Amino acid sequence: GRTGVPEVVWGLGKTPAQIASILQQIYDQSGLAMATRIAPDIAQEIQSKLAHCTYDALAEILLVGTPQVNHPGVVGVITAGTADQKVAQEVLVTLQYLGWRGQAFTDVGVAGIHRLLARWPEIQPCDVLIVVAGMEGALPSVVAGLSQVPVIGVPTSVGYGAQWQGLAPLLTMLNSCAPGVAVVNIDNGFGAAVLAGQILRVAARFAGGC
Amino acid sequence: GRTGVPEVVWGLGKTPAQIASILQQIYDQSGLAMATRIAPDIAQEIQSKLAHCTYDALAEILLVGTPQVNHPGVVGVITAGTADQKVAQEVLVTLQYLGWRGQAFTDVGVAGIHRLLARWPEIQPCDVLIVVAGMEGALPSVVAGLSQVPVIGVPTSVGYGAQWQGLAPLLTMLNSCAPGVAVVNIDNGFGAAVLAGQILRVAARFAGGC
Amino acid sequence: GRTGVPEVVWGLGKTPAQIASILQQIYDQSGLAMATRIAPDIAQEIQSKLAHCTYDALAEILLVGTPQVNHPGVVGVITAGTADQKVAQEVLVTLQYLGWRGQAFTDVGVAGIHRLLARWPEIQPCDVLIVVAGMEGALPSVVAGLSQVPVIGVPTSVGYGAQWQGLAPLLTMLNSCAPGVAVVNIDNGFGAAVLAGQILRVAARFAGGC
Amino acid sequence: GRTGVPEVVWGLGKTPAQIASILQQIYDQSGLAMATRIAPDIAQEIQSKLAHCTYDALAEILLVGTPQVNHPGVVGVITAGTADQKVAQEVLVTLQYLGWRGQAFTDVGVAGIHRLLARWPEIQPCDVLIVVAGMEGALPSVVAGLSQVPVIGVPTSVGYGAQWQGLAPLLTMLNSCAPGVAVVNIDNGFGAAVLAGQILRVAARFAGGC
Amino acid sequence: GRTGVPEVVWGLGKTPAQIASILQQIYDQSGLAMATRIAPDIAQEIQSKLAHCTYDALAEILLVGTPQVNHPGVVGVITAGTADQKVAQEVLVTLQYLGWRGQAFTDVGVAGIHRLLARWPEIQPCDVLIVVAGMEGALPSVVAGLSQVPVIGVPTSVGYGAQWQGLAPLLTMLNSCAPGVAVVNIDNGFGAAVLAGQILRVAARFAGGC
Amino acid sequence: GRTGVPEVVWGLGKTPAQIASILQQIYDQSGLAMATRIAPDIAQEIQSKLAHCTYDALAEILLVGTPQVNHPGVVGVITAGTADQKVAQEVLVTLQYLGWRGQAFTDVGVAGIHRLLARWPEIQPCDVLIVVAGMEGALPSVVAGLSQVPVIGVPTSVGYGAQWQGLAPLLTMLNSCAPGVAVVNIDNGFGAAVLAGQILRVAARFAGGC
Amino acid sequence: GRTGVPEVVWGLGKTPAQIASILQQIYDQSGLAMATRIAPDIAQEIQSKLAHCTYDALAEILLVGTPQVNHPGVVGVITAGTADQKVAQEVLVTLQYLGWRGQAFTDVGVAGIHRLLARWPEIQPCDVLIVVAGMEGALPSVVAGLSQVPVIGVPTSVGYGAQWQGLAPLLTMLNSCAPGVAVVNIDNGFGAAVLAGQILRVAARFAGGC
Amino acid sequence: GRTGVPEVVWGLGKTPAQIASILQQIYDQSGLAMATRIAPDIAQEIQSKLAHCTYDALAEILLVGTPQVNHPGVVGVITAGTADQKVAQEVLVTLQYLGWRGQAFTDVGVAGIHRLLARWPEIQPCDVLIVVAGMEGALPSVVAGLSQVPVIGVPTSVGYGAQWQGLAPLLTMLNSCAPGVAVVNIDNGFGAAVLAGQILRVAARFAGGC
Ligand SMILES: Nc1ncnc2c1ncn2[C@@H]1O[C@H](COP(=O)(O)O)[C@@H](O)[C@H]1O
Ligand SMILES: Nc1ncnc2c1ncn2[C@@H]1O[C@H](COP(=O)(O)O)[C@@H](O)[C@H]1O
Ligand SMILES: Nc1ncnc2c1ncn2[C@@H]1O[C@H](COP(=O)(O)O)[C@@H](O)[C@H]1O
Ligand SMILES: Nc1ncnc2c1ncn2[C@@H]1O[C@H](COP(=O)(O)O)[C@@H](O)[C@H]1O
Ligand SMILES: [Mg+2]
Ligand SMILES: [Mg+2]
Ligand SMILES: [Mg+2]
Ligand SMILES: [Mg+2]
Ligand SMILES: [Mg+2]
Ligand SMILES: [Mg+2]
Ligand SMILES: [Mg+2]
Ligand SMILES: [Mg+2]
Repeated sequence: GRTGVPEVVWGLGKTPAQIASILQQIYDQSGLAMATRIAPDIAQEIQSKLAHCTYDALAEILLVGTPQVNHPGVVGVITAGTADQKVAQEVLVTLQYLGWRGQAFTDVGVAGIHRLLARWPEIQPCDVLIVVAGMEGALPSVVAGLSQVPVIGVPTSVGYGAQWQGLAPLLTMLNSCAPGVAVVNIDNGFGAAVLAGQILRVAARFAGGC
Repeated sequence: GRTGVPEVVWGLGKTPAQIASILQQIYDQSGLAMATRIAPDIAQEIQSKLAHCTYDALAEILLVGTPQVNHPGVVGVITAGTADQKVAQEVLVTLQYLGWRGQAFTDVGVAGIHRLLARWPEIQPCDVLIVVAGMEGALPSVVAGLSQVPVIGVPTSVGYGAQWQGLAPLLTMLNSCAPGVAVVNIDNGFGAAVLAGQILRVAARFAGGC
Repeated sequence: GRTGVPEVVWGLGKTPAQIASILQQIYDQSGLAMATRIAPDIAQEIQSKLAHCTYDALAEILLVGTPQVNHPGVVGVITAGTADQKVAQEVLVTLQYLGWRGQAFTDVGVAGIHRLLARWPEIQPCDVLIVVAGMEGALPSVVAGLSQVPVIGVPTSVGYGAQWQGLAPLLTMLNSCAPGVAVVNIDNGFGAAVLAGQILRVAARFAGGC
Repeated sequence: GRTGVPEVVWGLGKTPAQIASILQQIYDQSGLAMATRIAPDIAQEIQSKLAHCTYDALAEILLVGTPQVNHPGVVGVITAGTADQKVAQEVLVTLQYLGWRGQAFTDVGVAGIHRLLARWPEIQPCDVLIVVAGMEGALPSVVAGLSQVPVIGVPTSVGYGAQWQGLAPLLTMLNSCAPGVAVVNIDNGFGAAVLAGQILRVAARFAGGC
Repeated sequence: GRTGVPEVVWGLGKTPAQIASILQQIYDQSGLAMATRIAPDIAQEIQSKLAHCTYDALAEILLVGTPQVNHPGVVGVITAGTADQKVAQEVLVTLQYLGWRGQAFTDVGVAGIHRLLARWPEIQPCDVLIVVAGMEGALPSVVAGLSQVPVIGVPTSVGYGAQWQGLAPLLTMLNSCAPGVAVVNIDNGFGAAVLAGQILRVAARFAGGC
Repeated sequence: GRTGVPEVVWGLGKTPAQIASILQQIYDQSGLAMATRIAPDIAQEIQSKLAHCTYDALAEILLVGTPQVNHPGVVGVITAGTADQKVAQEVLVTLQYLGWRGQAFTDVGVAGIHRLLARWPEIQPCDVLIVVAGMEGALPSVVAGLSQVPVIGVPTSVGYGAQWQGLAPLLTMLNSCAPGVAVVNIDNGFGAAVLAGQILRVAARFAGGC
Repeated sequence: GRTGVPEVVWGLGKTPAQIASILQQIYDQSGLAMATRIAPDIAQEIQSKLAHCTYDALAEILLVGTPQVNHPGVVGVITAGTADQKVAQEVLVTLQYLGWRGQAFTDVGVAGIHRLLARWPEIQPCDVLIVVAGMEGALPSVVAGLSQVPVIGVPTSVGYGAQWQGLAPLLTMLNSCAPGVAVVNIDNGFGAAVLAGQILRVAARFAGGC
Repeated sequence: GRTGVPEVVWGLGKTPAQIASILQQIYDQSGLAMATRIAPDIAQEIQSKLAHCTYDALAEILLVGTPQVNHPGVVGVITAGTADQKVAQEVLVTLQYLGWRGQAFTDVGVAGIHRLLARWPEIQPCDVLIVVAGMEGALPSVVAGLSQVPVIGVPTSVGYGAQWQGLAPLLTMLNSCAPGVAVVNIDNGFGAAVLAGQILRVAARFAGGC
């Protein structure tokens, strides 16, 4: 599209038939299509109608066709807890769909800061960092304090009580004392991946590409 | 610093003496220093103590020394209303302090969409766009729908009633139907400029610089 | 009724038997009856008891009898996303029940402003505009900036995270920088249709009718 | 302007010099100009610079030039308490500026329902009703239940404690059990007047005018 | 008990066995027992274990034994919509359990003020009035403005969107412009009945009883 | 008035001239008048214009004429902290104005439960209890658990941080585990006194009076 | 671990297979493992795979191995209502897992203060007190006013309406007029037990242990 | 007092005369008195009336008499930013008043994690840690992850925009992924100090003291 982002179907509130038909249409035009927020049973129904269609059960994403990573740059995707993997996987599959390279760093939370520091040599070379965090969502502040590259914070709804479905980490990231954290909506792994891709596209353009 | 962002003093809750002394210290180390959120009377008091110190009354920023734009790339700074100029100026002065080029586009709001479209040819070549918006804060959605580059939304507290000191545009930007808008805190022009600079630094690195 | 609006049954929290009996009573008096917020299984149960009863599955509305459009004027009903169709359909069926003409304009969202502008020649002749919008709900601001006729904004609960079940677009519409947007409750397609009808009735009275 | 509403300056966050200069510019183009939210001392400063300029101290509005009521139709403006007069006056002056006829009905609150009923014969002939209400804001529900014409509710910040600066009447009006109440922002008398004018303009068009 | 209110079991979060055993214990001591918030299937399970046990399916209350009205005074229980009957019935059954006389007045809402006025001669003789109201909850304000006796407002969670599960009518009642409305928790018909009984007990004591 | 409550002027948002003139009017009709929420300087201005006018500086109430306690029954007014005295005094002066007898019990907070129990023999004979409480507002729960008479809770805005201007004690009182606490608006001593009077009036009527 | 707290698995959002495998791993290292927030059906599935595994159905906790109380000091765990037992049991099982002695005090709520006072001689010797309270959550204030030892408040989501899933008791405890109450997240019995253990560990260290 | 905490006067909402008289009274009984939240001008007025009275201008605390540190154990008080010093000082002066030893660790924030780690050898020996943090308030999570001793988090209102006067760090601390953080009210340095003292008193008792 005009904005440089291939179209993506948002699965919520659509029937399997509607989703299948839009996916088919996008696939016919571009050889690649994707739908997010697809529950397993809906996925199965759509897969039975649509060829070339694979389902990522963790991310709850349907892909039609085989995306290729064809851009330079690496997006690091950092998480602390097992429960945040779902959103992190939405990031990773979306990056792949859009043609960017993602690299996952798991189990590096704020409550065990030495684990994060131990892995920092691997994290540092990344060109953009996406930090997915539920509970209090403090990880982006720490990461942004360590890093020179843009940090995108994705608050998740993982937690309970006064976490209020992601309000707590959302406020945390908006108020980060390390300046310059880019915040997206709660559980919005998709949007974080799109933003990371836009950042790398600027870089590619500077470098003479895109 | 390690994170590539020169230190900046946050003026709120500090005495003029404290601010002057921290500015002096940073200036002595790096030949350049900056403090944000400085009310006019506080500024005057500090200027009487500190040499090489200029005050931007709209942005309420004190600069010590003369910053140079010494990086490639242009950050477009888009606003609709007169009342948002204050935050936009915080963006522009911070960009300048950090060595990035900013370009202001004013009076291009959502309620007069044709004015925005008329100026699009000038806006399009920018490498990053920062959209500063109060009231309902719908402008970043429209801009992100038109553009391929990263869009940073800065909600402002300009408005009244159910605007709730910036809550309305903050939620608007977080829920943008154009994916990939990077959101920062309410009235946080400083953070938006830092983020834009980090994005351009990635690009510069790709292009062989930084 | 005295207020010029035929009675309508609100289906939530009523048993099928209760709904059927109230519908029968209204139908017997006026030859036409309607109930909103009727889930499919409840609808089926009522239809098995009540003659002349049709169900609009998208709007989740039961109609008894056949309404006639018998008033002048056209209400444009504008939406961006597939998921907002449900509420838009509540608007359209209610307009029809009340005797007003509605015209749907779909897929014209804020993130693709050129699609909206392309269809503006069709939208402009409408006498009242109802804009149904979830996510960030920015569309009414843009539409009200383009139009001279009254614009009614219906925020929907379509979205997730910081959309908070419609809070985000509700605040957006209340703070519209284009003045004069009439806001109704979240997902309240019914109320928007009633309001549009009241506006057209004033016009009809001026023109010598009603 | 294109939207049929003459431009109006929003005084908050602008210097007297800025306001005076914009007013002058609008006045030079159209022979009439208006600025809202002008505190008394700011007003005095502007009046000393600008000819033909009158100040409505209750509404805190500056008018340049003499508006004429030149459209058919009457807008009833209903209030209960003395403290809501300020917002009601913003409605009345804006109506006048836009060329519409307003008629005030004061001291007809919900806690003394017989006073409202006693005045109903005078209220009924109005073509649009604007109800300005603070505290719990119940008046629009009652008025909309009595009337066939469009009712616009303006919640005000008048009250204390759990009124939360207008949140209470805002929610009240959005949830009105009498369907079809058009709600605008808290204290937004200006927006209510613009909306009423847009409604009457539709009517005038039907009747062959505008 | 010391506070003059017979014990009542709150059913939420308890197993049928726990509820049955507590009810048995209270019944053995006082010849009467009651449990609120009992879903139909739980009720059936308890009834199969406990003698003398009747279930009010609308109020979702279990009664053990047969209460007698044995105090002077009448509590009027006023509602507008069908959906509020559930909470009103919790009021009526609790009054009965506590030995007070309740009288129901239904379908007398704010949107049809003449129906309320028409029934006022029947309502006026009541000694205490409980007004149960969902949606915007404006009815207690109107009733308190008409009446000299204490008015207890019970906000209900009946509504949708910006009603926020009873927040809207709760705020409405707390901000009532008719002074002296006693507010209880959302959907708390039980508490309203207890309070009404306490008010009548004071009266009975003055009159030489209790 | 019809509702049995003499009229009272709410001072917020009115000019001294307006207040003086309304007070004069009420006083001329009934020989007694009262205005609440009158700041000291406004009071002085009004007193200079109006005869028979006394000012209670703690309650910020102006009284015109000399009220008489002429009804049976006693209202206990219970507070814990010094800072809540202001609202308690609004209760006491309003009771006096309405002709009811009030009795103050101070320094009996929840954090020193033995002080409350020590004074219980004095508190117990009261016919209605008003508990004024800021901070967490737990006192009404304890008092209602000890007493058989109606308990009215007045949450105050006394506190800081997560007290949120009275939200904390408001929620506390609405959720009291001792059933039947009547809650009024934050800092609404006036409303609590009116309600207490209405309760005692029922009692007086039963006893053959009023 | 480094922080002195053995690892504990948080069950929410993990598959039975994931939980079983992490538990096995911890158990193999330390001879003891625990997982919280395990629904009964998940528990059964895990127990079928894992030896030495017992399930506490009230606390919804899985224990692998047999913990020993091996530290001095007693933690009193105080509750008022039956519905809070679930969270209290999470406290007790966690204490046991960590090696601390817990003692339960049930049915001692704020609405029956004499029951609390009657049991005070048993409560007083405890070294730390954990107060678990839903509804309005006033109990920690009263307990902290009676006791010299640290009081930890655990707000629970038990209640309805304006209790807002634990918001009411959370605010109550944060604003306690008895100073020094330690507050943890809503329903966070686990965290309260960890904190109590940390407090006793300091004591043990002073006494020469740990 | 019974609870082992000497009385402390809360200065807000009291006149200088009231504060002076309560301080005198406490001092006469115990040879030591303290008042918090005393603005500089109020302090001066009180100091002119009261002997032995010193004012800590940063903490805004008045002390009468000379407190002695006479208990074992050390409380570490950790802060990141200059603006949080005010609350940290309230902690330190209160500790001193209560007889406990406090040790300040400043400028060790989350955005510069290496500074915190560098000072850890000094922090580790403390017996209790109080972490005072505004902005996003992430520091207690990191500290609790590093430490075995009890960590008390004090959220502060330092910040702007979506920090909402301390809401952001309050939620952060309640949701800490490092378990066992004790949270107190926003800006409540006093309460944190009292709690730390209570924890050390348990320890002292174990060790044979107190
Ligand atoms: N998980 C997601 N979160 C937010 N936006 C999404 C997501 N998946 C798809 N979208 C966006 O939703 C839009 C498509 O919406 P629709 O037309 O309703 O399918 C596209 O612009 C996508 O950018
Ligand atoms: N979907 C809807 N949203 C809001 N109000 C409705 C809706 N459908 C019906 N109503 C209103 O609900 C009232 C009927 O409520 P009831 O008496 O409970 O059936 C009528 O006055 C309608 O105006
Ligand atoms: N009191 C008011 N409330 C809301 N909007 C207003 C008000 N007064 C003027 N406006 C709008 O504010 C816009 C002008 O804003 P500005 O360019 O900042 O002066 C105009 O479009 C007006 O429609
Ligand atoms: N800064 C403070 N924050 C919270 N509570 C305080 C503070 N200063 C004193 N207090 C408490 O306030 C109570 C005294 O309140 P008062 O009787 O109004 O002076 C004492 O119990 C103190 O524990
Ligand atoms: Mg960084
Ligand atoms: Mg874009
Ligand atoms: Mg328009
Ligand atoms: Mg009507
Ligand atoms: Mg009344
Ligand atoms: Mg009681
Ligand atoms: Mg204590
Ligand atoms: Mg720790």
